[in-house]
Amino acid sequence: MATIIGPIDVSALRARLDRASEAAGQAGVDALLISPGSDLRYLIGAGGDSFERLTCLALPVGGTPTLVVPKLEQPGYAGIPTDELGVEVVTWVDGEDPYALVKAAIKGSRTAVADMMPALHTIKLGNAIGGPQSLAGPIIRELRMRKDAAEIAALRKAGAAMTRVHGAHGRVPAASAGTEREVAGDIAAAIVEEGHTVADFVIVGSGPNGASPHHRDSDRVIEAGEVVVIDIGGPVAEGYNSDSTRTYVMGEPSHDDVWDTYAVLQAAQQAAVEAVKPGVTCEEIDNVARSVIADAGFGEFFVHRTGHGIGLDVHEEPYIVSGNALPLEAGMAFSVEPGIYLPGRWGARIEDIVVATENGVESFNNRPHELVVL
Amino acid sequence: MATIIGPIDVSALRARLDRASEAAGQAGVDALLISPGSDLRYLIGAGGDSFERLTCLALPVGGTPTLVVPKLEQPGYAGIPTDELGVEVVTWVDGEDPYALVKAAIKGSRTAVADMMPALHTIKLGNAIGGPQSLAGPIIRELRMRKDAAEIAALRKAGAAMTRVHGAHGRVPAASAGTEREVAGDIAAAIVEEGHTVADFVIVGSGPNGASPHHRDSDRVIEAGEVVVIDIGGPVAEGYNSDSTRTYVMGEPSHDDVWDTYAVLQAAQQAAVEAVKPGVTCEEIDNVARSVIADAGFGEFFVHRTGHGIGLDVHEEPYIVSGNALPLEAGMAFSVEPGIYLPGRWGARIEDIVVATENGVESFNNRPHELVVL
Repeated sequence: MATIIGPIDVSALRARLDRASEAAGQAGVDALLISPGSDLRYLIGAGGDSFERLTCLALPVGGTPTLVVPKLEQPGYAGIPTDELGVEVVTWVDGEDPYALVKAAIKGSRTAVADMMPALHTIKLGNAIGGPQSLAGPIIRELRMRKDAAEIAALRKAGAAMTRVHGAHGRVPAASAGTEREVAGDIAAAIVEEGHTVADFVIVGSGPNGASPHHRDSDRVIEAGEVVVIDIGGPVAEGYNSDSTRTYVMGEPSHDDVWDTYAVLQAAQQAAVEAVKPGVTCEEIDNVARSVIADAGFGEFFVHRTGHGIGLDVHEEPYIVSGNALPLEAGMAFSVEPGIYLPGRWGARIEDIVVATENGVESFNNRPHELVVL
Repeated sequence: MATIIGPIDVSALRARLDRASEAAGQAGVDALLISPGSDLRYLIGAGGDSFERLTCLALPVGGTPTLVVPKLEQPGYAGIPTDELGVEVVTWVDGEDPYALVKAAIKGSRTAVADMMPALHTIKLGNAIGGPQSLAGPIIRELRMRKDAAEIAALRKAGAAMTRVHGAHGRVPAASAGTEREVAGDIAAAIVEEGHTVADFVIVGSGPNGASPHHRDSDRVIEAGEVVVIDIGGPVAEGYNSDSTRTYVMGEPSHDDVWDTYAVLQAAQQAAVEAVKPGVTCEEIDNVARSVIADAGFGEFFVHRTGHGIGLDVHEEPYIVSGNALPLEAGMAFSVEPGIYLPGRWGARIEDIVVATENGVESFNNRPHELVVL
């Protein structure tokens, strides 16, 4: 069932539909075919998942956008002002051929399909329409990575909610003094209390688990003196996501290299955030963080990119990574999250979500960046 | 991250891999390409979702099954006995081309891809391999709809757990006497307490909401005299699902047609369950339930198929629906769930999961079928 994400801004959605159609034309395709997911949320405000029955927004270049939807799923889209958006709605029932309905809604046969469309629909659309299929992701992401004011407001709200979680609830590990999983459960509840619709992910990495950047949680009991990485996020009602990491220590650190190493990480993260402004490339931001860490001798222990774009998806363009020469523009929002991971011993990461502004940078996460002693 | 589903039965999985390869050959394709999802769980025991980095089991006809997996997601597959299964594991890191790795693992170019594979991977595999793409779903479902003893045991366990929920917790509406959503929250907790890993869905339809078969829950307060439809399900640790509906009434029904109409529904559901045995077709089972309801004058108020197959997915083959001439075989498991929906007034549904046996039928849900007065 589709879900309506937050307040609908008709003029913003109309502008997105127009820009998407224009971009599709420039990319040499005749129509975008968008199944339920973040791209559909972005274009018409309706969330939800793909199912075995086809739901598809056909967005023909120079034609009328048409939402083909199963009759029984139509109620989920009742809150979308399709008339005001200029979107025609075509319903179908079992026994009808929805792929033919999509074909009828477009002109030409060169289509670009949503990256997450299931093969079940991709292949049947390809058979029905006949022309070459490409991916819509590269077209839509050019729009989605440049956030408008309402999107930035939603990300700011999500960031503020997560700042409160780290502020009021970051002490949860000390209070519960249990396993990583117990702490994660308490924090998940706090994430919802503070204004998220769900706790999408809660990473609690204590001691050596903190040295594995892909760790989530475990039954490991958190011990005195251990460093604990807490990386948490989720969407607010508007559908936009938070993602913030802070590092804690359970009393005086049991390893004697914690304070000096953490100071390097903090300097790296701060330098990278301060380097953000329009015109600087994504890989330059990555390099700023990486250089500080490498110059202090920890280069081999920073084993991932510096950041990722964020919006309706937790991970989206632009990626802050070596090789990405994309220049930042005002409205691009992403994480800045260097880490230092000492295998088998301990690890630390600091993560803020920031947005490039006309003049520089705004951070959505404003908890202090120091190692927090619990 | 992949997750391991329950105990791994190596010989059962090897047999499934062999049968899938054989069926692919019979279907005229050179290889099956299976991304994470229920089909991959079925074949190698590993769950998980598809992400932007390709994970794919290439299952060539007459060749070595090869799991292509990102290096950083490999730990999620560490519990899979790939050596014993005869599955080669090929890892890749950012910068390498995983689609070329899949191409190298197969012979020929006629591939069938998993129905739920994202277009992101479907289209890139198509470009890399070059041959015609079809869907693996129709091939794999021929295997999956015939359950083996371990699968039946897992479905039996799931059914017993849900029987306990309806038995001990079906009275939740009376105790909480709140909104549909509050009741649904209490029942969701009970579903997990009784042995499911998560509460996948909880439908609480009271009064006129019970007359809408696609209703989930709402802020509507449940009133005295109202009929309440409770349809609940979720997976157990083995990955197999429960799905069971019972209908309740809050004291004496406020509509005077409830008892007589419910008796028709109960007779229809019982007749359909009793008709299940090898050789009877799916549409014949549907017709048994539908005839009882139609003969009593309620045909227009039974607006959906009689049932659906169930296993690793809540909805899978075989569908118990008009037009499905598939004869039942021992090992086919599915729901029998007729309903009567009186728009704007009230509705009722009774649902058991059953399996066709050599001699007839076994039901996995054994709560009494009578209307339960709370």
